Amino acid sequence: MIITLKKGASQKELDLVLEKIQKLGYKPHVSRGKDVTIIGMIGEYAEKYKDIFDSMEAVEHISEIQKPYKLASRQFHTENTIIKVSRSLEIGGKKIQVMAGPCAVEGKDIFFKTAKAAKEGGASILRGGAFKPRSSPYTFQGLGEKGLKIMKEAGKKYHMPIISEAMTVEQTVLLSKYCDIIQIGARNMQNYDLLKAVGKQSKPVLLKRGMSATIKEFLLSAEYILSQGNYNVMLCERGIRTFEDSTRFTLDLNAVPVLKKLTHLPIILDPSHGTGIREYVSTMAKASIAAGADGLIIEIHPNPEEAFSDGPQSLFPEQFAIMMKELNPIAQAVGRELLD
Amino acid sequence: MIITLKKGASQKELDLVLEKIQKLGYKPHVSRGKDVTIIGMIGEYAEKYKDIFDSMEAVEHISEIQKPYKLASRQFHTENTIIKVSRSLEIGGKKIQVMAGPCAVEGKDIFFKTAKAAKEGGASILRGGAFKPRSSPYTFQGLGEKGLKIMKEAGKKYHMPIISEAMTVEQTVLLSKYCDIIQIGARNMQNYDLLKAVGKQSKPVLLKRGMSATIKEFLLSAEYILSQGNYNVMLCERGIRTFEDSTRFTLDLNAVPVLKKLTHLPIILDPSHGTGIREYVSTMAKASIAAGADGLIIEIHPNPEEAFSDGPQSLFPEQFAIMMKELNPIAQAVGRELLD
Amino acid sequence: MIITLKKGASQKELDLVLEKIQKLGYKPHVSRGKDVTIIGMIGEYAEKYKDIFDSMEAVEHISEIQKPYKLASRQFHTENTIIKVSRSLEIGGKKIQVMAGPCAVEGKDIFFKTAKAAKEGGASILRGGAFKPRSSPYTFQGLGEKGLKIMKEAGKKYHMPIISEAMTVEQTVLLSKYCDIIQIGARNMQNYDLLKAVGKQSKPVLLKRGMSATIKEFLLSAEYILSQGNYNVMLCERGIRTFEDSTRFTLDLNAVPVLKKLTHLPIILDPSHGTGIREYVSTMAKASIAAGADGLIIEIHPNPEEAFSDGPQSLFPEQFAIMMKELNPIAQAVGRELLD
Amino acid sequence: MIITLKKGASQKELDLVLEKIQKLGYKPHVSRGKDVTIIGMIGEYAEKYKDIFDSMEAVEHISEIQKPYKLASRQFHTENTIIKVSRSLEIGGKKIQVMAGPCAVEGKDIFFKTAKAAKEGGASILRGGAFKPRSSPYTFQGLGEKGLKIMKEAGKKYHMPIISEAMTVEQTVLLSKYCDIIQIGARNMQNYDLLKAVGKQSKPVLLKRGMSATIKEFLLSAEYILSQGNYNVMLCERGIRTFEDSTRFTLDLNAVPVLKKLTHLPIILDPSHGTGIREYVSTMAKASIAAGADGLIIEIHPNPEEAFSDGPQSLFPEQFAIMMKELNPIAQAVGRELLD
Repeated sequence: MIITLKKGASQKELDLVLEKIQKLGYKPHVSRGKDVTIIGMIGEYAEKYKDIFDSMEAVEHISEIQKPYKLASRQFHTENTIIKVSRSLEIGGKKIQVMAGPCAVEGKDIFFKTAKAAKEGGASILRGGAFKPRSSPYTFQGLGEKGLKIMKEAGKKYHMPIISEAMTVEQTVLLSKYCDIIQIGARNMQNYDLLKAVGKQSKPVLLKRGMSATIKEFLLSAEYILSQGNYNVMLCERGIRTFEDSTRFTLDLNAVPVLKKLTHLPIILDPSHGTGIREYVSTMAKASIAAGADGLIIEIHPNPEEAFSDGPQSLFPEQFAIMMKELNPIAQAVGRELLD
Repeated sequence: MIITLKKGASQKELDLVLEKIQKLGYKPHVSRGKDVTIIGMIGEYAEKYKDIFDSMEAVEHISEIQKPYKLASRQFHTENTIIKVSRSLEIGGKKIQVMAGPCAVEGKDIFFKTAKAAKEGGASILRGGAFKPRSSPYTFQGLGEKGLKIMKEAGKKYHMPIISEAMTVEQTVLLSKYCDIIQIGARNMQNYDLLKAVGKQSKPVLLKRGMSATIKEFLLSAEYILSQGNYNVMLCERGIRTFEDSTRFTLDLNAVPVLKKLTHLPIILDPSHGTGIREYVSTMAKASIAAGADGLIIEIHPNPEEAFSDGPQSLFPEQFAIMMKELNPIAQAVGRELLD
Repeated sequence: MIITLKKGASQKELDLVLEKIQKLGYKPHVSRGKDVTIIGMIGEYAEKYKDIFDSMEAVEHISEIQKPYKLASRQFHTENTIIKVSRSLEIGGKKIQVMAGPCAVEGKDIFFKTAKAAKEGGASILRGGAFKPRSSPYTFQGLGEKGLKIMKEAGKKYHMPIISEAMTVEQTVLLSKYCDIIQIGARNMQNYDLLKAVGKQSKPVLLKRGMSATIKEFLLSAEYILSQGNYNVMLCERGIRTFEDSTRFTLDLNAVPVLKKLTHLPIILDPSHGTGIREYVSTMAKASIAAGADGLIIEIHPNPEEAFSDGPQSLFPEQFAIMMKELNPIAQAVGRELLD
Repeated sequence: MIITLKKGASQKELDLVLEKIQKLGYKPHVSRGKDVTIIGMIGEYAEKYKDIFDSMEAVEHISEIQKPYKLASRQFHTENTIIKVSRSLEIGGKKIQVMAGPCAVEGKDIFFKTAKAAKEGGASILRGGAFKPRSSPYTFQGLGEKGLKIMKEAGKKYHMPIISEAMTVEQTVLLSKYCDIIQIGARNMQNYDLLKAVGKQSKPVLLKRGMSATIKEFLLSAEYILSQGNYNVMLCERGIRTFEDSTRFTLDLNAVPVLKKLTHLPIILDPSHGTGIREYVSTMAKASIAAGADGLIIEIHPNPEEAFSDGPQSLFPEQFAIMMKELNPIAQAVGRELLD
């Protein structure tokens, strides 16, 4: 349930409410708006303690959240969540952030070359895979920590925060140390142990939608992270499975307005995986921004034909730079910013 | 196969080729570009007559079209097809055309009211259903010819071409008389008899994609129309079936760049049916234009709650007008025009 | 609504009710069980005349059917419908009927050869396509009436009723003359004009499920036929579209128990189209019978490699004969009969 | 690649080959048939060492496996794999094994009651969830180790091996201790870390197909387990996501013959999750056996209405007993055994 405090409630009054919630065995979730402070007390049977809070002086009113996801819902947090990734970079605000880089970190030289291209093209965040979820056990599985070190160094040189994927609880610890954003891949969207692990650390999380997950399940997976106390979650649509085979997946742009209605979390679109084909990436990036995306994640590679993985969907550096220039007026047309 | 004539081939030389094709029992399809004239000789076993044409003076070269759709392919016609709907209105050119109106024509007064709203909002074509394909035999099936008369009158008053759906071969004749564009609905995308019928008349055709048709099947259905000699076909994506249930269908925007690559035919998007929910229509319209749509088809109704069908997805007149204003800068951002 | 007459109501009393229904502008649908006669009065606003019938002497009680399909529902007709195809052959009874033959009738000799194989293998009904719905306009479209004549002759020789597909209203007339069962294909499941046409003639109809039609839509399409007065409708599941690509379609066997619950109409399974691959047909035929199918429709061809269409899914005559022998004990295990 | 030894090759000769493989940095996988011994040397670039083995005395011939899954393919192991679960119980042999029990272990009394019903109905393996993957973080997540202890005790009392699900690497250790079979759930089908963990322990593994996984991906996930040296893997089809909403999932029975062709691993069907609706379970179980299933996994509960999870799909004990009796003749009809 959601406890809304009276306007002007003091810190002491707030503390009293939080204390009570904890005594009852629940974890309080606080969301402060401009005027109002609301507190989520969420968990099975929370509603049966409603009367206790109803009688407290500072409490304005109490309401239940009908949706199965609570902290992720617009009811808990009506304004858009803005995630501070670094001192100067935030996701979910007016500026659309673009994350770019190769599918996998393949070596230092090539990664630095790609990072340079990402920066010059106008990306603000550097992506790269150090641990790769591969459907076959016999294909390249990533450079591991060595890859993370390369990424960190490149991020430092080009002044870009970095994002990489964690596939296990152990990797979460490592990524939390090296990266600015931790990605949870589509295949792990319902790996609840992993969701809890990233929920317990403090770095922002990009959660990818499973390739046949409904939007409701997607939000429930976000709820797993939020329920552990990490509210810096962004949602990433990356294509769903349908019968259509002219693209690798069907990028579900309907998901953008639907998610914008149901949740306050920022939404990132991945047209590279969503289409799986280089020549459609740029067009779908445009459509994503027009649909209201808060960010994009794009695969680029200086030499896509020789990429260890996902080559056919990676943009050439020049294609990326051209795309960014074309995206700019669309961002402006929907009241956003893209390039500086 | 495709016969390309030499630059500067005379009308007489062209006629010779056409005559030969007809003698062999095939129907020639002529496509004239700026410099080049190409002739499609299409049908089973056409390739075995290749040598006959190879030896003709005016023939530059002969090539096969690998795709199962021939006349619909970019190979047959490399430039975008522009369809002249009326003296001043064309589809597939720089200007994005918006078709608006109610799902069904319900009566004269209400239709004129809707037509006025469509016009004032900036629509250039008037839509409305006189014959309604309804999944239940017990629900309202449309006003029939009476509905068409109302549409024609309204179109005349507001200077807008009109579009309506044909469900049977007989209706095709009627619609060909009253309407400027004949629509073939998603449920009839593979009603081959109907496709041939609209292919034999001369009014432009808007062909909707079946709700689980692949893009290849969609183009083959267009080919049925083209093969009868009517080249004025536009393709309409209106949502496909997936497991996701937060929207009625999943509007497949990937289809836009894929179709733009494979075919020269104009592409129209239907975000009303594609989402099935009023509040998502405007956003998906924006994304459609950013993705490269040549037109939109939008349901509007002065009183959606009381509409005979598809009320929940119909825009209020004011919503439509606002949407059109918001679409304008996006159209400009992708080098198109929308409002005058 | 459904009007149930009192046990022992006389013909005269029944006539009175029917007359009243007709006067109100509705078409009565009569279903006589062993003890009870029930009358469907179906159409928009039928319920508002409830009181008129409530006061009639012979009326036991009146109930609404909640489902959007009325005549197709188990509520209207609680016992399984048994369709008499010929004096000695019925579908929906204890015996499972197997329809076999080639995809398309290709010529007299080969069709007679196939008919012989079908008969000898144990099929009771002969299938064959005279009019072929082909996704490409340039491929073989069937022999037309010539094909029907060949079928009729073969059916006569081998004492088998014949089934063939109608794609247009005109073909319906022709098929009604030559065939014992008229098939409506998956692509035409929502070709309402065609559904009404087969509903108005008296030959039994096999209606195929559209490849992405929900079960509810499937039943509503059956309702279109039933509502015209033809109650001899059988439903055919033939595979739905999913993301899985190791088979051509996904034969949806769940549909069998679901349909058995919702409707009284017989259910036919088509494992040939449902899998699209010869070597899986026999196994899926077994599963179909175990799931409760009332019949099967199977493609066979003496020379599948040379078939004009659908060769890869056609069984060789010997395979068909072996399959039939293997199906027999499964039929018995679920309390049915297959071979004589 | 696959190295086939000459008939009658000695143990010493075999050891020589294995030693060589290990020296090259690969893990050899040995499969002994009646006459032939074949050795899998699998991993990237294995093929480049072909010549080394070609020249060895005991080697008959060497072939590549074209499929991306190697150890799971019929090429590596042509006969069906039979998994010994206990001294007297094996999966994949003539007898069809049925696993039954509640979705979650809810308490000792109720679990023993359910175990008794499972045993009396004819189940040979006891299922139950101690750790529950729940889409919401706020719902019952299972009794954990306490649940496993209850299961073990019940299994001992009723002489039934037990199966339960592992969701994390840590749980794998625990389950390996208490259970006879470890289940990997659909949501974790591509949790590669978990797959490797169960591949490294020795208890048989039941791997469920992800709800939108293709069969190829399913086999690649099995390959992850096999590649670690655990060859006792059974595959479980449990329903895929489609547009159809009259059942919770679409149980894909086509997968049975397809998998039987591609792999030697036993196949288990889960009609409880596959349909999600109690009244369809029994029919789909029949179809599963007719399709060639090696086993079934069925949810039963003495009081489904009060079950903590998945109540609507759990059978009542009496329903289960009736179903088992009805399955028996179908098993016999396809040459298998079910009840003793």
